[in-house]
Parts: sequence; C-alpha cells; structure tokens
Amino acid sequence: MTQTRARADAGNPLAGFKVGREPYFRAIGNEVELYEAAYRTRMPVMLKGPTGCGKTRFVEHMAWKLNRPLITISCHEDMTASDLVGRYLLDAGGTVWHDGPLTLAVRHGAICYLDEIVEARQDTTVVIHSLTDDRRMLPLEKKNEVVQAHPDFQIVISYNPGYQSVLKDLKESTKQRFGAIGFSYPSPEIEAEIVMREAGVDRRAADTLVCIAKRSRNLKGQGLDEGASTRMLINAGLLIAGGIPIAEACQVAMVVPITDDPDLRDALTGAIAACI
Amino acid sequence: MTQTRARADAGNPLAGFKVGREPYFRAIGNEVELYEAAYRTRMPVMLKGPTGCGKTRFVEHMAWKLNRPLITISCHEDMTASDLVGRYLLDAGGTVWHDGPLTLAVRHGAICYLDEIVEARQDTTVVIHSLTDDRRMLPLEKKNEVVQAHPDFQIVISYNPGYQSVLKDLKESTKQRFGAIGFSYPSPEIEAEIVMREAGVDRRAADTLVCIAKRSRNLKGQGLDEGASTRMLINAGLLIAGGIPIAEACQVAMVVPITDDPDLRDALTGAIAACI
Amino acid sequence: MTQTRARADAGNPLAGFKVGREPYFRAIGNEVELYEAAYRTRMPVMLKGPTGCGKTRFVEHMAWKLNRPLITISCHEDMTASDLVGRYLLDAGGTVWHDGPLTLAVRHGAICYLDEIVEARQDTTVVIHSLTDDRRMLPLEKKNEVVQAHPDFQIVISYNPGYQSVLKDLKESTKQRFGAIGFSYPSPEIEAEIVMREAGVDRRAADTLVCIAKRSRNLKGQGLDEGASTRMLINAGLLIAGGIPIAEACQVAMVVPITDDPDLRDALTGAIAACI
Amino acid sequence: MTQTRARADAGNPLAGFKVGREPYFRAIGNEVELYEAAYRTRMPVMLKGPTGCGKTRFVEHMAWKLNRPLITISCHEDMTASDLVGRYLLDAGGTVWHDGPLTLAVRHGAICYLDEIVEARQDTTVVIHSLTDDRRMLPLEKKNEVVQAHPDFQIVISYNPGYQSVLKDLKESTKQRFGAIGFSYPSPEIEAEIVMREAGVDRRAADTLVCIAKRSRNLKGQGLDEGASTRMLINAGLLIAGGIPIAEACQVAMVVPITDDPDLRDALTGAIAACI
Amino acid sequence: MTQTRARADAGNPLAGFKVGREPYFRAIGNEVELYEAAYRTRMPVMLKGPTGCGKTRFVEHMAWKLNRPLITISCHEDMTASDLVGRYLLDAGGTVWHDGPLTLAVRHGAICYLDEIVEARQDTTVVIHSLTDDRRMLPLEKKNEVVQAHPDFQIVISYNPGYQSVLKDLKESTKQRFGAIGFSYPSPEIEAEIVMREAGVDRRAADTLVCIAKRSRNLKGQGLDEGASTRMLINAGLLIAGGIPIAEACQVAMVVPITDDPDLRDALTGAIAACI
Amino acid sequence: MTQTRARADAGNPLAGFKVGREPYFRAIGNEVELYEAAYRTRMPVMLKGPTGCGKTRFVEHMAWKLNRPLITISCHEDMTASDLVGRYLLDAGGTVWHDGPLTLAVRHGAICYLDEIVEARQDTTVVIHSLTDDRRMLPLEKKNEVVQAHPDFQIVISYNPGYQSVLKDLKESTKQRFGAIGFSYPSPEIEAEIVMREAGVDRRAADTLVCIAKRSRNLKGQGLDEGASTRMLINAGLLIAGGIPIAEACQVAMVVPITDDPDLRDALTGAIAACI
Repeated sequence: MTQTRARADAGNPLAGFKVGREPYFRAIGNEVELYEAAYRTRMPVMLKGPTGCGKTRFVEHMAWKLNRPLITISCHEDMTASDLVGRYLLDAGGTVWHDGPLTLAVRHGAICYLDEIVEARQDTTVVIHSLTDDRRMLPLEKKNEVVQAHPDFQIVISYNPGYQSVLKDLKESTKQRFGAIGFSYPSPEIEAEIVMREAGVDRRAADTLVCIAKRSRNLKGQGLDEGASTRMLINAGLLIAGGIPIAEACQVAMVVPITDDPDLRDALTGAIAACI
Repeated sequence: MTQTRARADAGNPLAGFKVGREPYFRAIGNEVELYEAAYRTRMPVMLKGPTGCGKTRFVEHMAWKLNRPLITISCHEDMTASDLVGRYLLDAGGTVWHDGPLTLAVRHGAICYLDEIVEARQDTTVVIHSLTDDRRMLPLEKKNEVVQAHPDFQIVISYNPGYQSVLKDLKESTKQRFGAIGFSYPSPEIEAEIVMREAGVDRRAADTLVCIAKRSRNLKGQGLDEGASTRMLINAGLLIAGGIPIAEACQVAMVVPITDDPDLRDALTGAIAACI
Repeated sequence: MTQTRARADAGNPLAGFKVGREPYFRAIGNEVELYEAAYRTRMPVMLKGPTGCGKTRFVEHMAWKLNRPLITISCHEDMTASDLVGRYLLDAGGTVWHDGPLTLAVRHGAICYLDEIVEARQDTTVVIHSLTDDRRMLPLEKKNEVVQAHPDFQIVISYNPGYQSVLKDLKESTKQRFGAIGFSYPSPEIEAEIVMREAGVDRRAADTLVCIAKRSRNLKGQGLDEGASTRMLINAGLLIAGGIPIAEACQVAMVVPITDDPDLRDALTGAIAACI
Repeated sequence: MTQTRARADAGNPLAGFKVGREPYFRAIGNEVELYEAAYRTRMPVMLKGPTGCGKTRFVEHMAWKLNRPLITISCHEDMTASDLVGRYLLDAGGTVWHDGPLTLAVRHGAICYLDEIVEARQDTTVVIHSLTDDRRMLPLEKKNEVVQAHPDFQIVISYNPGYQSVLKDLKESTKQRFGAIGFSYPSPEIEAEIVMREAGVDRRAADTLVCIAKRSRNLKGQGLDEGASTRMLINAGLLIAGGIPIAEACQVAMVVPITDDPDLRDALTGAIAACI
Repeated sequence: MTQTRARADAGNPLAGFKVGREPYFRAIGNEVELYEAAYRTRMPVMLKGPTGCGKTRFVEHMAWKLNRPLITISCHEDMTASDLVGRYLLDAGGTVWHDGPLTLAVRHGAICYLDEIVEARQDTTVVIHSLTDDRRMLPLEKKNEVVQAHPDFQIVISYNPGYQSVLKDLKESTKQRFGAIGFSYPSPEIEAEIVMREAGVDRRAADTLVCIAKRSRNLKGQGLDEGASTRMLINAGLLIAGGIPIAEACQVAMVVPITDDPDLRDALTGAIAACI
Repeated sequence: MTQTRARADAGNPLAGFKVGREPYFRAIGNEVELYEAAYRTRMPVMLKGPTGCGKTRFVEHMAWKLNRPLITISCHEDMTASDLVGRYLLDAGGTVWHDGPLTLAVRHGAICYLDEIVEARQDTTVVIHSLTDDRRMLPLEKKNEVVQAHPDFQIVISYNPGYQSVLKDLKESTKQRFGAIGFSYPSPEIEAEIVMREAGVDRRAADTLVCIAKRSRNLKGQGLDEGASTRMLINAGLLIAGGIPIAEACQVAMVVPITDDPDLRDALTGAIAACI
C-alpha cells in the first residue's frame, strides 16, 4: 500500500503528484521501450486492454521511471469539461479562477492519465484535441486564456475494447491522434509470480489460482463478460494468506462477485475443484 | 430502537457515527469470519442478497464488533459524485470546502457502506475505483487534492441480484474489485427465533409467520417479485403483539403492501389460512 | 372548510401543523384500529386506494385523533431529495441550513404524509429507507449530520394501485417496509350520508347522486379510467344546493370534467337520466 | 384594447390585477350562471373548448362581473412549481422570499386562471391539489409555511380537448377536482355580431366572414387541425376595415397562417370565393 | 454593410435599435401595403418563406420605413422564456431586474422580430400569447408585474414551411393569432437586379448566376433540400467581383456548401456549365 | 512545436492570439487564393474535408499570412451560446460582463475559427446567423447590447462530411451563408514531403509510410471508418526517428489505435508488410 500522495503544497503545485516509491510492474513485452519512445516526442499514448490487467499500474510505473508527476483522472459520464479544465469559484473578493487537474498538468508539466476517457461526455474528448496535435495548447475559453503546454506535459488515455458500443466510442478524429500500446493477461509463469508477490502466498497456491483463472477465462463469451483478472487472483490470495480455505477464498473473490447464474456458478466451482 | 447516533461534534468528525449498542445479528454461516478476513487486508466487500434479509444489520453489527465508525449512504439515481465527495459552499468569507460522507470516511478511517450502489449514476461508481485498488486514494478533483485513505478505512457495498438489469448493473471492472459475501433467508428455526426476539411474540405465532413466509416465497416468479422478507414477518408480529388478530395482521404486513392482483391475494390468503 | 393552519411560529416549529378541528371521517371498516396499532409501534403505513375515496381525509382525522402535528407533502416527478430533506440557503452571514418538511417532522415528531410518493423521483423513496427500518434515522448527507427520529415521528404514504406502471412503481424493497391499509368506495348508504353532510343536500338528491355514481363506476374499463369519486358527488351536490338543476349539475361535476368521448358522454347522460 | 393593468403597487399587492373596464363577452348558453354557482362555493372550474373561442375573455368577464382581481398564468412545459409558488431571491441582506403569482392569488384572494395547465410539468398540477379539495391550502415547502387560502380565492383552468395526448393529459385525480363548463363556436348570428363589434366592419362583411368560417370548420379533420376561430375572423375584419380587399384579407388572416398544403389552400380559397 | 447599430445608451433604451440607413429592399408584390395595414392595428405578423429570400431584410426595411426601432431575436432550442423576458442579476446591492429584449420592445414600443420562433422551446411561444390577443400585455411572473404594451409595439415572427416537422411546429392556437405574408424567390428580372446591386457584378454575370439558380432550384426534392437562395448568388457574385473565375466562384458559393453527394455535384456542375 | 501563444494582456485583448511563426502548410490546389478572395469581402468560409488532412493547419497558416489574430474554438455538444458569447461573472462589486471568445473576435477584429461546429448545440449555430449576413452584428441578448463586427472580423468553420448524420447536421439556412473550400489527402509525392519534414525521417521511410496509407485508405468502408490520415503517418515517422523498427512503429501509430477487429488488423498488417 503506497503512502506517497499528499495534498499539493503551495510552493510546487505538482509536489503531491510525484510517485514516491517504485510501483511494482512486471513487463510482458516491449511496452516500456515503446512508451519511452513516445514520451520522447511527447506523443499522446493510448493504453488498450481488458479490465484489471495492469494499465493503471503501468502508467504509475512509467511516471516513476521518467520521474514525472502523474495526475490520474477517472472519467465518467457526468464529468464535464469544466471538471477537467477549471472553473471560477467565489472568494471573499469575488470570483477566482481555479485550474482543473488537466490544466494543472498542462501548465506545470505532468503526465495526465485519463482513465476510461470513453466514459466521459464528448466535451471532454474535444478539450484534448488541441493538446494532441502540434499546437499543444489548451484554450481556457471561460478565461480567454490560451495555455501553451509545458515541455514535459504528456497525455495518456486508457481504452477497454470490450466496453465500447456504437453509442459510446471515441471519434475517429480522436483515435488518430494517439500511439496505442496493447495490454493483455500475462503468461501463467509471470502471473503466478505477480500473485505471490502481491498477495504473499506460496508458489503452490499461486499456481492453483492461475489454473483457475485460465479456466475462468475460457468461459468468457459463454455467459461471462470477462474472465478472472489478475486483480481477482490477488484478492483470493490475500484471503488465503489471511487463513480462509482456498475453495472458499476463490468463491468470495472469483465467483460470487461476478455472476449469479447457477450454471455459471457450477462451472466456476468445478474449475476451482479441478485445480486445487 | 437504537438511539446511538447524534450530530458529529467538532472534536472528532466521526464521533456521531460510532454504533453505540450491539445491534442484534444472528449469523447463518461463516459470514462474520469472512468479513473479518477481508477487513484485515481492507479488501472492499460486496454484500449480496435479496431485500430485507439483513445486509444492513450485518454491516452495523460488524462495525460495532470491529469498533469502527460506520457511515451509511443510501444510493439513488439522482446522487452525484459531489454528494459523496464534497463541494464548495459559500460562507461569510467566500467559498469553503465541505467534505462529503465518503471523503469523511476516507480521511478519518470509517467503514463506508454504500447501500444499493447500483442505483447511483456512473460517476459514483467511478469515484470509488481508486479506493478499491492498491492506490487507496480519493482524488478531490475540484480541490486538486488527493486524499490517501486512513489505514482503518474500508468500503462495503450492497447488491441485490434480483434488481439488476442490462441498463443498470455494475461494470465488470467494478465488480472485480470486491470480495463478495452472499446472504439469503435464514432457516425456519433461526427465522422464528429472530421474529420472537424482534416482534415480542411467542413461539407459536413466530412459527405460524415463518410457515406463511415459506409459502409466500414459493410464489416468487408466479406473479410475485419477491416473497415475504424477515422484515415483513417482524411487522406482522408487531401488529399481533399490539392486539390485531393474526390473519388481519398478516394481510396488513404481508399481503396488501406487495400485490393488488386478486389471484395472488387469494393465494396469499390461502397460505395464511393454511398455517394458522 | 378548515381554517386551522397558519405559519409556523419560531417557538414551536410544528405549531402550524396541528389539525385544529375534527375533520369529518366516516369509517367503513376497522381502518382506525389498524392505524392505531401501527402507530403504537411507529410502523410505516401505506394507504392504498382509488382517487377521491378519502385517504387524505383519513390521515388528517387520525392526526387529529392522536393529537399529533401532520406534515403533508404532495409528491411529483420534479421533487428532489433536497425538497424533502432541506438545503443550504444564502443568508447575510453566508449559507444557513434550512430543514425540509421531512426533516422537520423527523426532528420534532410529526406524522409525515407523503401523498402519491410513487410520483416522486427515486431519490425521494431512498431517502425514507433508513426511516422505515429499525434505524429510524435520517442522514443529512450535505450536512454530515444524522438525525435520530423523534419518538412520535411516523411516516405515512398513499398509493393508488390504478396508477402504477412498470416504469413508475415502488421498489419491492420499499413496499416491504410498510403495513398497508386498503381503501375503497363506501357502501351506498354511507356514501349518501357523506354527500348529505358535505354538500348540504337532502336524502333524495344524495341517493340520486349515489345511484349515478354506481352506474358511472360500472363504466370503468369501458373507456373510463375511473368512475365517479365521492368527491365528484359532493361537487354535484354543492351545485344543486346552489340552485343548479340536478341534470345540469351532474354534467358539470361528473361528465364534462372526465371525458370528451361522445359515446361515453351519452352513456353517462343516460345514467343520469335513469337515476333522477 | 384594455389598458387596465399596471404594476402592482406596494399598498395592495393585487391592485394591478383588477379588470378595470367591462370586457366584451357575448354569452351563448348558461355559462355565466354556472360559473356564478361554482364561485359561490369556490369550486375549482375547468373551461373546456377549442382555440380562440373565448375562454380567456370569459374568465376576464367573470372576474370583472364578480369584482375580483384576476391573475392569469400561461402554462408551458418549462414552467416549474417555483414559477407558480415563489422562490428565494438574493437581496442586500441575504435571501428574501418572493411569492409567485399563485401564492399571491391564494394569500390575497384573487381568481387564479391557469391557461392550458396541461402544458405544464406535473409538479405544477400537483401543487394545486391541496387548493382544490376542502383543505384549500398551499404548502410552501421551501419555506415550511402553509398558506390557508383567502375566502375569495378560486382556481380556474382551461383545457383544449383537441390537444391532449396519452403523454400529456391531466391525471384522473386532477380532473375529478373540477366542475367543467364547455365552450364551442357561437351561432352564425352571434358570431357576426361579435365580428362587427370587434373589427368595426359592417353586417355584410361580417356575414361573409362567418360564411367562410363555417366552410373552413367543415374542413377540420380533412387536413386541417382546427377550422377558423372567431379570433381569425376578427383579424380579417380588421384588415378589411383598414382598406385591404376582402379576398386578400382572408388570405392573410385565414389561409396563409394555418396551412402550406396546396390542396387545402385551394379548398380555402374556394370557400372564400363562394362566400363573397 | 450597415453600421447603424450601437450600444443602447441610458437615455433612450431603444436608441441603439433604430435602423439608421434605408436597407435595400426590392418588393415583389403588395407585401409593403399588407404590412402597413397590419401595423396600423398592431396585428401580429408572420413572415413565411424559404431560406435566404429576404424576410429579415424586409422587416428591417419596414422598421426603417415606419421609423420604429427594431429588436431582432434569433430563436434556438436552448432559448428560454427568461432570455426573452428578463431575469434578476446580482448587483452590489442585491438582485436587480434586467428587462430581456422582448420586454424592452414591449415597454418602450419597438417592433420585435422573433426569427425562426419555431426553433425555440414552447415556453417562448406561450410567452407571446398574451401579447397577441386584445390583452396586449406581458406578465413578468418572476416580478409579479404586468407590462401593458406600448402603443407602438408590434410582434413579427418568421416561419420557414420547409423546416417544420410533427415534433417542431407552432401550435394551432399560436398560428391563429397572426396575419401571414408569404415570401418566395423573386422573378429572374428582379433577382438579377438584386445580384448586380449587392455583389457589384455586371448584367451578364448576374443573368448567368440567376440561370444557374433556376436550374439548382429545379433539383429541389431530387436530393437537394433547397435550391440556391438569392444570398448564395450574391456570394458567388462577390467572389467573381474579387477576380475568381465564374465556374470556380459558383463551386465555392453554390455547390460545395450544400452537398457532398457526387451525383448532385455533377448535376450542379452541369447546370453551371450550361449557363455560362 | 509553435510557442507563439500566451495569455492575453490587458493592453490588446487579442495580443495572445497572433500566430507568431509561419505554420508549415503545403498547398495542394488554389485554396490559398480562394481564401484570400473570400477574406477580402469577409465572406464566411467553410473548410470541408476528412480527419487529419490539415484544415486546422490551413487556417493557422492563413491567419499568419493575413497577419490577423486567430481565435480557435473546438465545438462540442455541451457547448452553449454563453460559452461563445460571454456571461456575467460575480465580482467584488457585483456582476461583471465577460466577453466570450466569439465576442472578443467580433469586437476587436480576429478570425474566429469554429472547429467542427456541427458538434455544438443549435443555439451556437443560430448565434452566428446575424454575423454571416450583411448585418454583421452580434446581439448580446443578456446585455441588451448589439455589437457591430470589427471590419477585420471573419468567421471560419470546419465541416467533416463523413461525420454528419440526419440528427446532427447544419441547417440549410446555415450552410447557404458560407463559401466552402474542399480539402482531401495530398498526392503521394506531396504527402511524403510533408512526412519527411514533420517527422524527420528520410525519403525511403516516408515513401513506405505513404504506401501503407494508400492501402489503409482502400480499406475504408470495408470495416474501417476512415483510412490513415497524414497525422498518423507523422506519428509513425516520429517513432521510427526515435529508434522503433518500422513495422512496430506502424502498429503503434496506424493499426492499434483505430481497430480491434482481428481481420482488419490482419489486413493492415499485410499492408505494412507489402510496403516495407
């Protein structure tokens, strides 16, 4: 559990956004090199992949590696452009402008990570357009100010291909502005290593959990929207480390949260029994 | 009727949220042990089960047992992220930030119980994402502050499988963050015990009510959305203890509130007659 | 016409909500006893029945009988939780909290009557959940205050079964919290008695009006959403007492307001002719 | 053109709402007597009838005859309950409550005319419920004040049967609270009399216009939503009195405004030619 | 390019709205006489016709001719009644009422031109009802003030028959309040005259453009929503006068803006080639 | 990367909007001459063409060439007329009017570029109507001020024909006000030249990328919404210049961002292999 974030102090507005300790990240391919090449030209980056496979962890790791502050914004459908860019607030002496998190990153040079940007309303996507071409500027229309991006500023977004629909997708003209790096579940070997490290269980328990995960992922499309993520294996591992029997821990972390369908529950329970 | 809640005083902002007296809870399985194991690693917990089977009572009981303050938030579709996180209010000297109930829990270390979170708008669900992975932080975007969760903080949500629809369900990426504990109606023996204790009726009346409940639950899916809950049995018991004849008390507490269909009313009336 | 309500004075915030004179109510069954039993345990009560059959009058009568202040709230689809619970208003010295009508009732011990609660948005229904189980508390989330209900507080709602649709109905988990008392049109004998008393007409005119009402109610489902209510009979009676001929009074009070369909108008006119 | 309205002065808040000069109204049936009987018991009144047949003029006439101030509110779908009831406004010393037009009428005893109330949102309709039964009170929920209606207060609404749809209609429980008076086009004799008086044309021109109106009304349902109203005849008459030839005046006032369909225009032009 | 408008000064609130120089208008029929007759009785006027045929120019011309100030309001679907009527604004000493443009016209006697009123929300249309019958008054509901219209005030609206749909049309009860004047494209002779004067091209170029316009208008309904308007001919003429070859000028002004369909582009290009 | 924009200083409100250094633009046809002719008469201009083909760069280039300030506004569906025109803000001494970006351009004489105006709500489109005919004025309705456009002011909009739908398109009456200049992808020769200059790669790499782009564009309509834009070629080039192998760079910049369909990914991968 990292304790590295704190309130931004007045001296350096990004002081609270430095990633203090190295976040654990286990690379699968050349994602680190690709990201570094993109960052050198400050190319906007899109991280693509399913739920719980480590996209957020990766960007935290890269911000730590490049020693840049990281501002993460979880997008949602009620988020407005003002939530990103800033707004006027009423103070003792009248209205005062407060930079939003995106403006803060643009002005002072952070990596700005817009998590699941496709969830946000269109005004959010449009706001980043002038930041993702060679203009690299952010117009604050309500202030009649144009902020030229700090040389260190970069924009990163995440995108889960399984979630998009016709109604909710990025526009072509937005997608074309990004270099994209794909993510997927790690190999069994690497995944077991991650579970051991994160949950504090031994090799045997980790292998069992990875075995169950594999079978769960095979059920995807047969009633299950997504198979068990690495995150769920870690949750199961934490319960096991806390003394809960493995079958029960798997029920709590990998079965009950994701389905109420009796047949699927049976199939998942069978997968657990087969791997233990 | 517990009288344990009062206005939060200035000294300890969570003082008003301690559960003062032990709330009565009759365990059915190992739900207490599972919850304790989850709380030890501060794993987010999802309580799953039908209406009126004791999920809210359980979390009150656990908060009392673990001696942690409990902040309960009933979610609804007009709830916004600001209702959870906080907002600026205008004071004599300008705008002042007021922590919302979630921020209060995160900052000072309460158990935060989001009841029927699936009813809320998506921005609410997204707000908890960074609190339910290893970051355990809450970004207050309007303040440019990042609150690192207090070590005692834990998040608990309730989820009624019978209510979800395609339009209104938690996203896969949200579900996978939780360990889940299932709840269902207690055994006849235990349920009668609960009714006797809560309504103040004798064994015979309690057994009769449990008998009616069983028949009512068998009608589920045959026009009835859900059968009689333990809460309804207690309501009937209270009327009986207040001098209302048992058949009439059952009509008021277990028939008239849930259906206007003549056939279903007949079926339920028949069930009552058969058990008395 | 009762003249008993006046502005709440500062001394007792509920002073203006006492029902000063006995409202006329003619019981049909044991509804008074059932309500008294429910009130003794402060059980939430649902009054069920068609338009204009006396639900509002009944709750006014019971509040008078039990000598409790009554706060009535007519729900509608633009009503928000804040309208019920309260909000911050800007005063000379900054924002000041104002209790809404529900909070007023909870804090000081009134009967709170939510008329046609199903019309309100879901946040309204959710707000009452913690008031309708053994917690009996109202969280004021915007204030971070939890109000424990006054021992005299009780919640009453009305529900018209004919109005509900799939889109607009109380949730199972809300319905199960209430004891329900059913209302319907009174017997001809009692209804004539009510019309004589309320409209000031003689027995013969009252009997004629009740005769027309009966025929009108038989047309329900044949183009008419609901038959004539007791309220409409009283309106017709008032016009008769004011010198308007009975046939014309019935047109004004019982035909023209509810239908523009020529066939239905003919049928209703025929019913009037048959009873005079 | 009446010049009787002026800004409400501070002394009598309804001073500006008295109808100063007798508005011309030509009764067709016993509508005046019915209204007077309804007003004696302060029964809520619904005026039913097609566009431009004199409903507004009637209520102005009755207010003048009964010597009561008249507050007219044109309802529309963006009207809120606050627009009717009142709201807090910010003043030098903080927020101050301002009565809305309905509250003004209720408090000081005007006739309140809600024109086309069915256009308003449901909260508007619900607001009038407690004013249209024997409670005759208006709860100002935002103020926690209950206003008992002034003895002279009466509510009047208009309702155009041709406009209602399933989506937009008054609820049964609203309709049943009103006595209803029907309006339709006057007889040719009376209509010509009205046109002569209002437009200042001679008998012959008036008869011609009424002849055209009759033919136009026969086209209703054959492509035309409504036939020519008395108001349109007066408009044509005014142009004729201003020197425009009759055929051209009829085109401007009775054809071009209501249809762009060539066949209907031909039919209407033929009707004009046939009557001149 | 008229330079006649400036900020309203404090002395005469309508000073900035006088039309200073005669706007060029070439009458086609008796529209000027009809308008003058309507203005004499202050009859509300509706100008009907397709895009770019001179409705706005006509009302500017008439305002100049009658020497009345002109307030033009371009309606749109986000326009509210408050945008027309006025609102309270917060000033140093509290809230102060600011008349909207419609109220300004009503109070001080301007012609108020609501351009494409059908685009506005219904509350806008309803606001003008009491101004378009013999009451000629504007209720400012938020102020409890009734403004009696200045004797010079008149209301004018524009209406494009080609744009209306079932969802978006004026209500019958609104249409019937207006005298309507129809507009269409001028004859070739007159249109060439207009183009010469407005674009500064010679007769030959003007005739060519009018020839192209005629062919373009024949394509209406065959994939083209509307043919070339007089305004487009003037645009083409301006480019020709600026040295662009005629075929290219016609592409820029008359083809590329209105269609991307290859076949239609070919047809229009053929029309250009045929006329040059 | 241009560094030419800075905060507007108080002396000249448009000082921050001058384009300081010549933006690189490679003309394909006579677009520069057409624009200059349009600007001479201040004709409103519409730039039409697909994503990433250089419309924004063109208007930046022309503003630099004509030495006029440029205010760019990225439109989106939550943009309101107030965002363009301005609003009242609360200051120490009450409300103060702040010009929006459009008003700023109109008042002081900038070129105002509304990027993808079709995304905005209709009120935005209507606001520009009086600026795009011979009135050249902007009514600030909330201020009762009419701003006559500065002689240097011009309006430019962009329009992507591939994005329009029935629900979201400019109205005929808007389109007809503009002269339109069409844009498309440059010829292979010119495109390679642009990629070399912008990404810093050699001729061979540039030719390879242009070869891939051509094949990608042929897939348009076969599952791909749009082919690779010039912008994407530059992104790939930047990665190549940063040391990433060409096949991998093309995956990151030209495949992964735009499709998740396995067949399309194969087709694009084949296109890359064929060109290298």
